[in-house]
Amino acid sequence: MRRDSPIASPICYNRKAVAPFRPNLDPSSPTPLYRQLGIYLRQLMESGELHRGDRLPPTRELAAKLGLNRTTVSAAYDVLESEGLIKGEVGRGSYVSATPPARPDTLNWSRVLTPSFSTGAGAPANGVISFASSRPSEGLFPIEDFRESCREVLDSKNLKALLQLGSPGGYEPLRRYLLDHAVGAGVARESDDILITNGCQQALDLLRRALVRPGDKVAVEEPVYPGLKNLFLEAGADLIGVAVTAEGIDLYSLRRALDAGAKVLVVTPSFQNPTGATMSASARTEVRAMAANAGAVVIESDIYSELTYASGDSAHAPPRLKELDPNVILLGSFSKIAFPGIRVGWIVAPRPVIARVTELKQLADLHTDHLSQAFLLRFAESGRLAHHQSAVIAAAKEQLRALEQTCRRFLATCDYKVPRGGMNMWVTLPGDLDAVSLRGLAQQAGVDYLPGRYFSISRPLDSGLRLSFAGLEPQEIRKGIEILGGVIHSAMRGRAGDTQPALALV
Amino acid sequence: MRRDSPIASPICYNRKAVAPFRPNLDPSSPTPLYRQLGIYLRQLMESGELHRGDRLPPTRELAAKLGLNRTTVSAAYDVLESEGLIKGEVGRGSYVSATPPARPDTLNWSRVLTPSFSTGAGAPANGVISFASSRPSEGLFPIEDFRESCREVLDSKNLKALLQLGSPGGYEPLRRYLLDHAVGAGVARESDDILITNGCQQALDLLRRALVRPGDKVAVEEPVYPGLKNLFLEAGADLIGVAVTAEGIDLYSLRRALDAGAKVLVVTPSFQNPTGATMSASARTEVRAMAANAGAVVIESDIYSELTYASGDSAHAPPRLKELDPNVILLGSFSKIAFPGIRVGWIVAPRPVIARVTELKQLADLHTDHLSQAFLLRFAESGRLAHHQSAVIAAAKEQLRALEQTCRRFLATCDYKVPRGGMNMWVTLPGDLDAVSLRGLAQQAGVDYLPGRYFSISRPLDSGLRLSFAGLEPQEIRKGIEILGGVIHSAMRGRAGDTQPALALV
Repeated sequence: MRRDSPIASPICYNRKAVAPFRPNLDPSSPTPLYRQLGIYLRQLMESGELHRGDRLPPTRELAAKLGLNRTTVSAAYDVLESEGLIKGEVGRGSYVSATPPARPDTLNWSRVLTPSFSTGAGAPANGVISFASSRPSEGLFPIEDFRESCREVLDSKNLKALLQLGSPGGYEPLRRYLLDHAVGAGVARESDDILITNGCQQALDLLRRALVRPGDKVAVEEPVYPGLKNLFLEAGADLIGVAVTAEGIDLYSLRRALDAGAKVLVVTPSFQNPTGATMSASARTEVRAMAANAGAVVIESDIYSELTYASGDSAHAPPRLKELDPNVILLGSFSKIAFPGIRVGWIVAPRPVIARVTELKQLADLHTDHLSQAFLLRFAESGRLAHHQSAVIAAAKEQLRALEQTCRRFLATCDYKVPRGGMNMWVTLPGDLDAVSLRGLAQQAGVDYLPGRYFSISRPLDSGLRLSFAGLEPQEIRKGIEILGGVIHSAMRGRAGDTQPALALV
Repeated sequence: MRRDSPIASPICYNRKAVAPFRPNLDPSSPTPLYRQLGIYLRQLMESGELHRGDRLPPTRELAAKLGLNRTTVSAAYDVLESEGLIKGEVGRGSYVSATPPARPDTLNWSRVLTPSFSTGAGAPANGVISFASSRPSEGLFPIEDFRESCREVLDSKNLKALLQLGSPGGYEPLRRYLLDHAVGAGVARESDDILITNGCQQALDLLRRALVRPGDKVAVEEPVYPGLKNLFLEAGADLIGVAVTAEGIDLYSLRRALDAGAKVLVVTPSFQNPTGATMSASARTEVRAMAANAGAVVIESDIYSELTYASGDSAHAPPRLKELDPNVILLGSFSKIAFPGIRVGWIVAPRPVIARVTELKQLADLHTDHLSQAFLLRFAESGRLAHHQSAVIAAAKEQLRALEQTCRRFLATCDYKVPRGGMNMWVTLPGDLDAVSLRGLAQQAGVDYLPGRYFSISRPLDSGLRLSFAGLEPQEIRKGIEILGGVIHSAMRGRAGDTQPALALV
């Protein structure tokens, strides 16, 4: 239907030109026929089959040809005209008057959108042994037990109520179960309440809204989980990194953060991500006292403490900060032990805090998915969660053994401390090796990790890296650490001889 | 174990006093025994059974009595001492030195927490015919069809992957399904992408973060859905209410909002909540052009348009704003047709917008629950959703008929327009009747609704109220409207004669 001078040849429409009009109209579609036809015509314009100046067939003719009511074709033309794509002229029919915008061009999105604070970790490598993701092993998922829990929920008479709108606070039987559990563990008191969230990430997001105004100083661990850092940066918080050593947060560094005016402290006392560090009972008492004296709110992320692997340790697990101080806000989650694809976590905190975050939860997404809450409750109540937890811990012992043995052998030049639980370990590279540069070589050699810089706030952490081991088989850990050790060894020799070119940043 | 002068009588511990020590210790609990014991002792202090100055049994003795290792008892005492609750004195044993704080008292939460912008609607009445909730009828839920969809997902080999951490953008097969559907309906173009959210509420929350800085002017319909209003108020936006008439937003009011500098416009062109109003095709073209000329971003909430009940209407449904302008951001959801307890919705928008909201989604809660996404995809793909939608529409026709007939008869003194779809209808009371005052009488008479003030921004809307009819049976609608008509009639007579006292605010 191309015309060189379309305006000059008004009768560009003819039988031949109409022939390719073969819209695929479906009367049973929820989209009305006239709109299906309009969409088809617009697509012809977008694809260049209909051009500016081309004349459209008369409505009567097109209707007859397509077996449509003439008003349907008129309605389609009306929409196109209202979109400014065609123009009707009395006695001369309808012409294509503009080319539809192929892409949004009237808005400058980069100016309209709020700026991003997220820092990328770089693309993860495929087909390698990856220590890059802090998540449980799919291989351990107790699929049959989970299916059984779901079936029990789906078969229950309660299903109808689960599919209806619920309460922002969460599914009441799950709330009660978790709160009873928390009271039994000495974590929750009469003064506390609970909110169900979409995992721990949403718990942090809601607390951020409830506690942090732009410009507020917030103390977080450094290295820090980036999902926590970026969340507070988005909110305009002024982040103060509190150094984390192998024994947890450094008390002097915390003192300085509190003296600088930190209003909120977010801390993971057990098996912190990314370091794997765990604080002693006495350090916890000190942290609690320092925060209380400074009037700072403490948010305790407790998502790893039930993943204590070393035998005997659980009998001497240090108390949670929440046990030491009723003002502490505690975050829990099923994601680290059970299934991260099912987004259920919770906040246990003093009632005024829960009242406020529940209000914010309603604004954020009304409430957490009902079915998932019911599935996980059934999975926990039935004892299947405890059973699964034992299996995870048994497997993790093997993972830790593999890690310990191979690190001793292949990462002897590095600084590290194998944790006794959780999912992550921090490694500091020898000499002036840079973990970002080394990563490219590691990926080429068949192993991946996340460089320390990704977890940084103000410290460089260039020589640090995180190894997440929970998703790997012991033999993968052995092989991966051996490869990594080899890469480090080569890089060190290259450095020493200074004969190799500088490593490329990836 | 009460002592009048505890410090003066150091040997307050004795056999008799120890006798009530009956901690319920569970060696198989994940909480270590020493902490279970510590919690038990703390509870004795909280309940007043142990008092300041009371002496605790020696560790050796208590260990023997409870059949515990002595180190377990020592560890429990250590924790209590670190909490400042007991004090050990060499040679004299351990004393209760403080009463544990029964409630958080060191933090002034009302000063720490960010202020709330939410306005309550007042307590809904129980045991009455309630027009207060805009949600579908549970009675129509196709439970067996839904169970079948779930079973198909649970039985699939894919289940393991669904339980693992996923992508912030959403479950890929669902994304593809919805985007294909949106392209077919002429709503999505090559320049668009999609994000899966936890229902439409989260879509609004993420877009708010992506588009609105504190102090930005945002134009919203008035009366407005409060979950939208409160969300933007929390973000520090400056809301401008655009009046909604029975024909949708008032164009002159929109003109003024855009002239005042509104940067974002949120609009529900079809069956708006709370009014039920639907805009004509020509008004849509005008709105689209005005917003584009002003450079304002348009967010189109399209969660009700597939609930078009009047026969023939769907064949002449006006185009979505998104069809008229590729820059428009479209919100969709399964919640209004299918199951609101399952939180799945989506945003179709130009790629730069989706890139930004996907980043924010990751910060908000990593990703939407995987299982629910898979269940709803299966429910839709299998044709069960379309089947259910037909059933909902058939039932809604009966609801609308009941509404139309009884309103004509009993609400003749009111101003209203029965909608041709959606879930809500707006009613303006006669004279100077106030919907807040009237509500108490209505509840007493057995019917409930939400007063207009709840949906207000700057206009009073005191004589308006919302009737949500979708969750009610036709006979409930008939009876409810008759009761409401009676209440209005009585109130009007009271007013006229001025013999009744002023109605109480509820």
